[in-house]
Amino acid sequence: MKKVLAAPQPLICTPPTVLVGTMVDGKPNFMAVAWCGVACSNPPMVSVAIRPARYTLKGIQNREFSVNIPSVDIVKETDYCGMVSGAEVDKVAACKFDVFYGQLTNAPLIEQCPVNLACKVAHILNLGTHHLIVGQVIETHVTESCLTDGKPDLNKIQPFVYGMASPTEYYTLGKSIGRCFSVGKELGMKK
Amino acid sequence: MKKVLAAPQPLICTPPTVLVGTMVDGKPNFMAVAWCGVACSNPPMVSVAIRPARYTLKGIQNREFSVNIPSVDIVKETDYCGMVSGAEVDKVAACKFDVFYGQLTNAPLIEQCPVNLACKVAHILNLGTHHLIVGQVIETHVTESCLTDGKPDLNKIQPFVYGMASPTEYYTLGKSIGRCFSVGKELGMKK
Repeated sequence: MKKVLAAPQPLICTPPTVLVGTMVDGKPNFMAVAWCGVACSNPPMVSVAIRPARYTLKGIQNREFSVNIPSVDIVKETDYCGMVSGAEVDKVAACKFDVFYGQLTNAPLIEQCPVNLACKVAHILNLGTHHLIVGQVIETHVTESCLTDGKPDLNKIQPFVYGMASPTEYYTLGKSIGRCFSVGKELGMKK
Repeated sequence: MKKVLAAPQPLICTPPTVLVGTMVDGKPNFMAVAWCGVACSNPPMVSVAIRPARYTLKGIQNREFSVNIPSVDIVKETDYCGMVSGAEVDKVAACKFDVFYGQLTNAPLIEQCPVNLACKVAHILNLGTHHLIVGQVIETHVTESCLTDGKPDLNKIQPFVYGMASPTEYYTLGKSIGRCFSVGKELGMKK
């Protein structure tokens, strides 16, 4: 298996695609973010990486933001929110997003997204081109019709991922290839 | 679209699945990690969240680690590395991993993984159940047969994601639903 040394790059291959929301100048604004991930289980935390020049980052000064998981239905709107600046257009109007709020009044949530995380800023790391914002999830909202037996159902949520290749493309989930913490047991478990 | 307030949780839905490697007591060890993401473009950085009790974290004291992207071929081995501890079993032997090294001698890389990132620790945040390790990618290795026209090709890499639902399952990528920074143009671009 011959290896090639490519330019150093954070080639995670399949980061998620989310819409990060903040309040800027009193108005909700959203941008598409793929540089994000889970940061901690308890307290529940997520990380999002944002360029300092982005309009969205201005709203981080409120110490609150949201992470919204879009479904394949709104892939165009999501992509749009990654291309245009809230300084120039009202993305909420352009995308026809219905915005709602939980207890964090500076964390705007998108009704059309099946999952919404309202977060408080816990840490900000200035890493270079991006600031890494680590936020504690204060509220998790899920669209009721995306639950099965009261639990989030990926077949109903229909999230999509950001494929880091050339060109970059959005991908749906394919088929399940095994249950986590289970399929590996075939290799034998040693006490 | 009725919303339900669930317990606060970092429901990113589709984090990637990677194998994080460190050297512990002079031996390479790997664990499966889904709590990871891109942290910065330049310098290229990634984040991985690891519980302090994990054997892998001991190796972080060397200030080096690796992130290896497994393909669907080794989903069982990947899952196994998330279930057993390197304190008890030699996972490299159990999984028949061929380990190689770049310039970072404390960042063991798995030949069977099509993409390998050798990283230097830049930041460690103690967040609660997990430590968030932010690492700068010093080297990116790609299996030559997974390139098309010299660039990483997801159809050949065949990564898989961690589906956060009940139960959690590993999912392949499905179909492309649009090119990034392109499909959203249909909503109209304002100068």
